[in-house]
Amino acid sequence: MASSILNRCLASSLRPSLGLSASGYRHQQPAKRVEEVEFDGPCMKTEVPGPRSKILAQQLEGIQSVVQVNFFCDYEESKGNYLVDVDGNRMLDVYTQIASIPIGYNHPSLTKVMTDPKNMGTFVNRPALGMMPPEQFSEKLVNGLMAVAPKGFSRVQTMACGSCSNENAYKAIFIWYRNKMRGSPEPTPEEVRTSVINQVPGCPDLTLLSHGRTLGCLATTHTKAIQKLDVPSFDWPIAPFPQLRYPLDQFERENAQEEARCLEEAEDLIVKWNQKGRHVAGVVIEPIQAEGGDNHASFDFYRKLRGITKKWMRCRRGGSTGKFWAHEHWGLDDPADIVSFSKKMLTGGYYQKDSFQPDMPFRIFNTWLGDHTKNLLLTEVIKVIKTENLLDQAKRSGKVMLEGLYDLQDKYSHMLSRARGIGTFCAIDVKDEDTRNNLLLLKARNKGVVLGGCGTQTIRFRPALVFREHHAHLFLDIFNDTIAELK
Amino acid sequence: MASSILNRCLASSLRPSLGLSASGYRHQQPAKRVEEVEFDGPCMKTEVPGPRSKILAQQLEGIQSVVQVNFFCDYEESKGNYLVDVDGNRMLDVYTQIASIPIGYNHPSLTKVMTDPKNMGTFVNRPALGMMPPEQFSEKLVNGLMAVAPKGFSRVQTMACGSCSNENAYKAIFIWYRNKMRGSPEPTPEEVRTSVINQVPGCPDLTLLSHGRTLGCLATTHTKAIQKLDVPSFDWPIAPFPQLRYPLDQFERENAQEEARCLEEAEDLIVKWNQKGRHVAGVVIEPIQAEGGDNHASFDFYRKLRGITKKWMRCRRGGSTGKFWAHEHWGLDDPADIVSFSKKMLTGGYYQKDSFQPDMPFRIFNTWLGDHTKNLLLTEVIKVIKTENLLDQAKRSGKVMLEGLYDLQDKYSHMLSRARGIGTFCAIDVKDEDTRNNLLLLKARNKGVVLGGCGTQTIRFRPALVFREHHAHLFLDIFNDTIAELK
Repeated sequence: MASSILNRCLASSLRPSLGLSASGYRHQQPAKRVEEVEFDGPCMKTEVPGPRSKILAQQLEGIQSVVQVNFFCDYEESKGNYLVDVDGNRMLDVYTQIASIPIGYNHPSLTKVMTDPKNMGTFVNRPALGMMPPEQFSEKLVNGLMAVAPKGFSRVQTMACGSCSNENAYKAIFIWYRNKMRGSPEPTPEEVRTSVINQVPGCPDLTLLSHGRTLGCLATTHTKAIQKLDVPSFDWPIAPFPQLRYPLDQFERENAQEEARCLEEAEDLIVKWNQKGRHVAGVVIEPIQAEGGDNHASFDFYRKLRGITKKWMRCRRGGSTGKFWAHEHWGLDDPADIVSFSKKMLTGGYYQKDSFQPDMPFRIFNTWLGDHTKNLLLTEVIKVIKTENLLDQAKRSGKVMLEGLYDLQDKYSHMLSRARGIGTFCAIDVKDEDTRNNLLLLKARNKGVVLGGCGTQTIRFRPALVFREHHAHLFLDIFNDTIAELK
Repeated sequence: MASSILNRCLASSLRPSLGLSASGYRHQQPAKRVEEVEFDGPCMKTEVPGPRSKILAQQLEGIQSVVQVNFFCDYEESKGNYLVDVDGNRMLDVYTQIASIPIGYNHPSLTKVMTDPKNMGTFVNRPALGMMPPEQFSEKLVNGLMAVAPKGFSRVQTMACGSCSNENAYKAIFIWYRNKMRGSPEPTPEEVRTSVINQVPGCPDLTLLSHGRTLGCLATTHTKAIQKLDVPSFDWPIAPFPQLRYPLDQFERENAQEEARCLEEAEDLIVKWNQKGRHVAGVVIEPIQAEGGDNHASFDFYRKLRGITKKWMRCRRGGSTGKFWAHEHWGLDDPADIVSFSKKMLTGGYYQKDSFQPDMPFRIFNTWLGDHTKNLLLTEVIKVIKTENLLDQAKRSGKVMLEGLYDLQDKYSHMLSRARGIGTFCAIDVKDEDTRNNLLLLKARNKGVVLGGCGTQTIRFRPALVFREHHAHLFLDIFNDTIAELK
């Protein structure tokens, strides 16, 4: 049984550490680093959305749904951690385009990539990367995606977006599983014949156990009805993800019981589906369920889940779970077989072990197979992360964030609970959905902080990696004021 | 029943017309248009792939499958219709990155978009377009995608690639169908509950009748086993696509019989699946099956198919087929409900009628929802197509191409057959797969022409829209020489 890891966010890999500790709020901002060229703080001119955003929304409404549009942005004017909208409102961005801006807005290094004449051809001519890659393709992969590949992964396949990454990772798992089953990559004539008419044995009745939003990915997401309702799905097994109490270290006994229950159920499901003849080819997991409400589990849980999948696999491959590259916490030599990514990586794609790369051409293929311009930008992003030591920075900022959130939930216990996080990948629950959506998020925005929700009543914090301690203090100050006003 | 049209290529919309006629081969090149700055012709220095390509392939092999890689390209040096590889070979490109380069390599207008400082923010900061679109978003959609929207389509949804476009178009069809069935966009509590666990009624047992390569798209493609084998699929009905004889006007009687057979079978399948309670929510069709082997059907066939879907639909919507925007040939006021696109449009996405736009937020949603940089480039592409009159150009070049192909199949009837095409979207069959793959395509490439195959033994011609008559003559000369040498 293979295991696939869905990754969302660089920041999620950052262990909380012994960096600077948070002092209380109304914090004095430390002197800025010289390379910081961003703004001093938020600057609000109108309510958000302001009049210009509203006019633009009316225009867009004629051709597209605008029910999800928050406001329109001035991406030229945005800088670092600050997002500027079309009404001139400048906001501290703790959501970063649903966690997909790695090193802040308009980082000078990325601007340089764009103005380098030797990159022009890549931006103007989009290659079919699988057939006619550009000269620097390998080099950019080596210095980009492979430079941050999780340990044990030697291969990477790029895709255009997160859904396509997961869909094709699932295909790779199924192909791998069937090749092992029949002991050969060569299909029988009957398999070839039936595959083109959607029938077994060519299209086998295999399943994935899961804890995306295209039709395959939809079968492995279970958070929000709105994304799945009315769309046909696969009858694939769904294991419960542990619902833990936070902070984790204060509820170890209860949480261990909950995790044991979930592990038992996962194993039962695998046995049951295998007995039905609908073999489980892989286990798909997000190590921190983000969209689902920022649900964490202990590292021990993932180690045991990997053990279960290894026990039930047929071909000496393991099956488990992780997050970019959160699975490195688990202390496993062989934590997973496929690790998918998107968002802050700028390109979609997945890392895979050698044995998962299909043996024959065109088994995993589409016209573009990603977008090489994103590889150019990612290579620069990785260079900046290393040069500016942004992973350590995120550990320090994350510590300030999480301690600040603990303080706030103590202070406003009627309103906030379950603060949790690793690095700056933090979250907190609000007392109910309506308070979160219609009061807290909107009021914080009008005070100059962009936030986003996940799950039913959670606020997720997804700052860029250039989010420093003083940004965290600034956010906590404004968040504190926002809640104080709600009392 | 809804109908979805999968589109691949601008060129496919071009009717053969009464433009310049082809004269025979060994043609004298006409004086070039002044704005043309490209090369005089192919210039070959090595066999392809050359030594540099081979070294790069070895490097890439360490991290990715290279079985599909033809050669590595120098996209900076490529220009207009000429693709230059890393060994300095300059080839006339009649395949254009699997039909995805609309106006040739390094068109000066696109270079201008890239060097315009006011576009910098868009290229450096990728927005979550569904939530925080950039200021110029509507404007670029209006001057880009909506400026070429097929008649009757007022709305467009962008996606990152072709597969995601089709997957989400399918979702839109299912959502629309269920809303009509229950008479309301409001689901029942039971539907909400079951949707998150992949069960009916929330995830209904609906089907699409089809004639992509993610899991949903895979269920509606039936050409190549290699793309489907080993991957679970949906048990959805598959109607035969007419297998016609070419040229169409010489085989009208036989072809009409074949089309009648296919229409009857399509209707039978709809009735049969509906009777099973697995209602057909939509019909998906490519008006020219490209990947499947460049299969055409008569305009009458599509009109009748739309008629059948209208008869069996439950909600007064039609269901039929088309291609960008080939469906305009059919002479129907209401040819389809959704038209998807990718490739030459630079961005993925689909046009839809008002009633297909989901009523509630986040029903069709992902982080990026496309890539606004592609909208910037597309807006410029459309301007160039209009300014340079490239649709008329493609009609003229297409006429040269097709007449030349007819001549060649007469001359080499042991080798070539079934020449067909609309505009420059042409194809011809080779006597067998091995001759096509291992002789014709490779030898033509070494003579300086890049070609691609489709189906089992077809060569598809997919030049850019800047492919002029003299390029067509040049191609035909080289193709003629290639085949002559094979005798």
